[in-house]
Amino acid sequence: MEAPEFKDFAKEMVDYIANYLENIRDRRVLPTVQPGYLRPLIPDEAPQKPEQWQDVMADVERVIMPGVTHWHSPRFHAYFPTANSYPAIVADMLSGAIACIGFTWIASPACTELEVVMLDWLGKMLDLPEEFLACSGGKGGGVIQGTASEATLVALLGAKAKTMKRVREEHPDWDEATIVSKLIASPACTELEVVMLDWLGKMLDLPEEFLACSGGKGGGVIQGTASEATLVALLGAKAKTMKRVREEHPDWDEATIVSKLVGYSSIQSHSSVERAGLLGGVKLRSLKADEKNSLRGETLEAAIKEDLAAGLIPFYAVATLGTTNSCAFDCLEEIGPVGNKYDVWVHVDAAYAGSAFICPEYRYLMKGIETADSFNFNPHKWMLVNFDCSAMWLKDPRWVVDAFNVDPLYLKHDMQGSAPDYRHWQIPLGRRFRALKLWFVLRLYGIENLQAHIRRHCGFAKQFEALCRADNRFEIVGDVNMGLVCFRLKGSNELNDTLLKRINGRGKIHLVPSKINDVFFLRMAVCSRFTVSQDMEFSWREVAAAADEVLADKTMKNGHA
Amino acid sequence: MEAPEFKDFAKEMVDYIANYLENIRDRRVLPTVQPGYLRPLIPDEAPQKPEQWQDVMADVERVIMPGVTHWHSPRFHAYFPTANSYPAIVADMLSGAIACIGFTWIASPACTELEVVMLDWLGKMLDLPEEFLACSGGKGGGVIQGTASEATLVALLGAKAKTMKRVREEHPDWDEATIVSKLIASPACTELEVVMLDWLGKMLDLPEEFLACSGGKGGGVIQGTASEATLVALLGAKAKTMKRVREEHPDWDEATIVSKLVGYSSIQSHSSVERAGLLGGVKLRSLKADEKNSLRGETLEAAIKEDLAAGLIPFYAVATLGTTNSCAFDCLEEIGPVGNKYDVWVHVDAAYAGSAFICPEYRYLMKGIETADSFNFNPHKWMLVNFDCSAMWLKDPRWVVDAFNVDPLYLKHDMQGSAPDYRHWQIPLGRRFRALKLWFVLRLYGIENLQAHIRRHCGFAKQFEALCRADNRFEIVGDVNMGLVCFRLKGSNELNDTLLKRINGRGKIHLVPSKINDVFFLRMAVCSRFTVSQDMEFSWREVAAAADEVLADKTMKNGHA
Repeated sequence: MEAPEFKDFAKEMVDYIANYLENIRDRRVLPTVQPGYLRPLIPDEAPQKPEQWQDVMADVERVIMPGVTHWHSPRFHAYFPTANSYPAIVADMLSGAIACIGFTWIASPACTELEVVMLDWLGKMLDLPEEFLACSGGKGGGVIQGTASEATLVALLGAKAKTMKRVREEHPDWDEATIVSKLIASPACTELEVVMLDWLGKMLDLPEEFLACSGGKGGGVIQGTASEATLVALLGAKAKTMKRVREEHPDWDEATIVSKLVGYSSIQSHSSVERAGLLGGVKLRSLKADEKNSLRGETLEAAIKEDLAAGLIPFYAVATLGTTNSCAFDCLEEIGPVGNKYDVWVHVDAAYAGSAFICPEYRYLMKGIETADSFNFNPHKWMLVNFDCSAMWLKDPRWVVDAFNVDPLYLKHDMQGSAPDYRHWQIPLGRRFRALKLWFVLRLYGIENLQAHIRRHCGFAKQFEALCRADNRFEIVGDVNMGLVCFRLKGSNELNDTLLKRINGRGKIHLVPSKINDVFFLRMAVCSRFTVSQDMEFSWREVAAAADEVLADKTMKNGHA
Repeated sequence: MEAPEFKDFAKEMVDYIANYLENIRDRRVLPTVQPGYLRPLIPDEAPQKPEQWQDVMADVERVIMPGVTHWHSPRFHAYFPTANSYPAIVADMLSGAIACIGFTWIASPACTELEVVMLDWLGKMLDLPEEFLACSGGKGGGVIQGTASEATLVALLGAKAKTMKRVREEHPDWDEATIVSKLIASPACTELEVVMLDWLGKMLDLPEEFLACSGGKGGGVIQGTASEATLVALLGAKAKTMKRVREEHPDWDEATIVSKLVGYSSIQSHSSVERAGLLGGVKLRSLKADEKNSLRGETLEAAIKEDLAAGLIPFYAVATLGTTNSCAFDCLEEIGPVGNKYDVWVHVDAAYAGSAFICPEYRYLMKGIETADSFNFNPHKWMLVNFDCSAMWLKDPRWVVDAFNVDPLYLKHDMQGSAPDYRHWQIPLGRRFRALKLWFVLRLYGIENLQAHIRRHCGFAKQFEALCRADNRFEIVGDVNMGLVCFRLKGSNELNDTLLKRINGRGKIHLVPSKINDVFFLRMAVCSRFTVSQDMEFSWREVAAAADEVLADKTMKNGHA
């Protein structure tokens, strides 16, 4: 494809995109295709000769659109929003044209530098503490991660590196032998041994009934803690034995330290926290949330005290601001000081709700942010920047850089050290020029319109809440925060499951469910940037109509029975 | 920004992109900016009011372009190519407009289904064994990873899950206690314990002199293996003690299995393999390559035998086809059967060179592919698909799915199981609709033109090689494979380092260096899809001119001395 054809094709695509997005309501939000629908629609093999772009263009409607779930339809209320905006699309075009891989500063200075400044801009928009910002002249700074999952993992690895260093200093006997043995075999290995990821992971987000740590249901003990006295005795015995084993086989002792590390988050936190535990191989405890589904400082402190008493090393705590289940907010104002008191790295995961902090009236929900070590939110969720763009700030990125630094010669360059080499701040090596779309979006909307976007969405949620409360067959679950309404028919979980299936089966709007404390409910997330008040009324009428059907069926069945 | 403005802006961007790419030779390939150049060029904070898109457009040249390293210039020979094509750019526009997050089939069926079929198309183009293809009706299938680093890690985790299962069956006593203790505390935890990532990692890509396993230089013992008799005795003692510790504290024994697992790759393999080791927390041994920088079967078998004799559990081997250092090819035809013989998962990393296997004349380099468990290459490197798009095939994805499956309610859907839910095949949860650009590129180029693209690049490398060989001040390092020429001035490493700095300092072309067995050399990678024969002559003249300067300086200094 030569430039003239590209121009024709791309311009036709521009018109197609505008038309698609402006008329997205006309499409069924959830497709009706069955698994495997696509294969028969296209050839079994790639064509030998090039095709015409016009044929490709025609196939977008024929092949692709029937199988698209329209995430940007005002009728899409599932999960959380994913961003989409005209400026971000144009930015991605340019990013695609420049197509640099910005793993080092020299690999494309503009790519790194724009990211540094954009994360400062964003940080200021959120009123983040100075320490997080590169422009403060300190050690801090921001980075765009692909997803919040990556940010969580990066923070976890930084936390691990930091704590390992401290423990090594406090207990030089614990790994002196290891270091020495490594020095004999291979000096360079030592540094990497520091970042071993052999930790034990536990899962989060389990239904509460499975978790002993939720308050005793299901077993009475949490994994690996038992009662305090028994555990201390066991650990004493183990430590004693381990010392001997260490002398016989010096490799053992880093693992010993590692096996003692323990992290914390709320049982309400996202599955990505669990994944970070899996990937990092570290013990993570799911802590009980209060009646508002919020993790409280006293719960964290009790857990830390318990683990310290048990000889464990608390090192990491995740506070979620805006949980996926119900948009609940952990109490950062309490959690942060507890973390600081015990030298536990506090990571704040505000993936969805973080965008709202560009509005001052919501900042009370991030009170205590000055106590955090790292902070993350996803402009690609709720701030009109196309996926992927997850913004993360660290007060002291050194810990993360240390954990990731594996520099082959072909990646070294003269400017090393004078600007962040972002490859050390993330999981993959390569990275796209993602700061561009942030820049385009911020400039072409302006803070005012981004604030208006957030406020409008929050207002739509309140509107839906009011419609729901006015119908006494329904109840609201918890508080309505941000653009999420959790609701259910008064009645059994089964009834609500039937309601959900009915709503999604009608195909006009799309919702997903969740469950807290064994209560099944529906989540109505405001997702689309095209949503207007009439769309909320439409969505509510759909819910009410589906409820009519479900309750009528039930009455009929009861009548028959 | 409303649709009419978007159309104007996007169409102007289309023209800009075409103009940028068609005239990319006119720009200095490496920017001259200093770290920090960008910040003063733009405001300290995001604007309150929206700006005009025309102002943003103007700033592309003013702010961005001065700091761009032009990866698509024919003068860019650093690293390896990253893809860029008009169809991929247009596909990304559409992907950006649809902007779905395809983590489950239902989240956008077209996103999953097109990926399945595109990976079949690609697999057929490479003539991959049927077992890898979804259309074969077996368990196999392909997936797009963001980067090869992710693919390597995914394969490693699959390998771990597979081996853990086998070991558990062979040694039921090793973790029965663990399983039981987990069942009491939390049944669901058991499954996740299976995927604990607490392994010990060693680094790869070390200079050979540091590594005992390279043949005895630098210390005579490899990390943690010592001499066989001593080690067996140590492990016997350890195993005995561990059994007792296990009874006292049942959590220990998964760690024991894990600490025995050992993986292999060549010392020439990519830093991402090392990262996979770090992230997976597993022991990885760097094995010595032969004089062609190729890992041989006998080397692997010797290492496996050594480790088996030492009581370790070999589980994973990475064969690199086209190393980053010198585009060397590990001998898969030998490595594969060795892996199969010892039940070791064979992962093939063909990140760069894999694209060449669409040309039958290069397939001899992937001989033995039928013995592999997973195969990965990056269309985003050398096959005109914009970053990110790394294609991976697995014969039995179940192992990976098991390792990643953490399903909260809000991600469950009715169609689960009838199509791949790709979130279990990758590290992050979210994913873009990346199959689109693959589809656009394959259709709009056709296999013929993609083959021609590969052959043209290989021809340019041969052309550069001939120019280099005709100048007797230079020598070629190793064989010239694919689009990479490794060369150096006859003389010291310092001389070649000076040459490299001179070339990059002149700013007309861009190269990066590498080093094998302490020999420093320059890598000339053919990267741009715009390259023509005259560009190779231009690049060579630049190298020769820089050599003139460097050698003249040297003569002058020697004259003074």
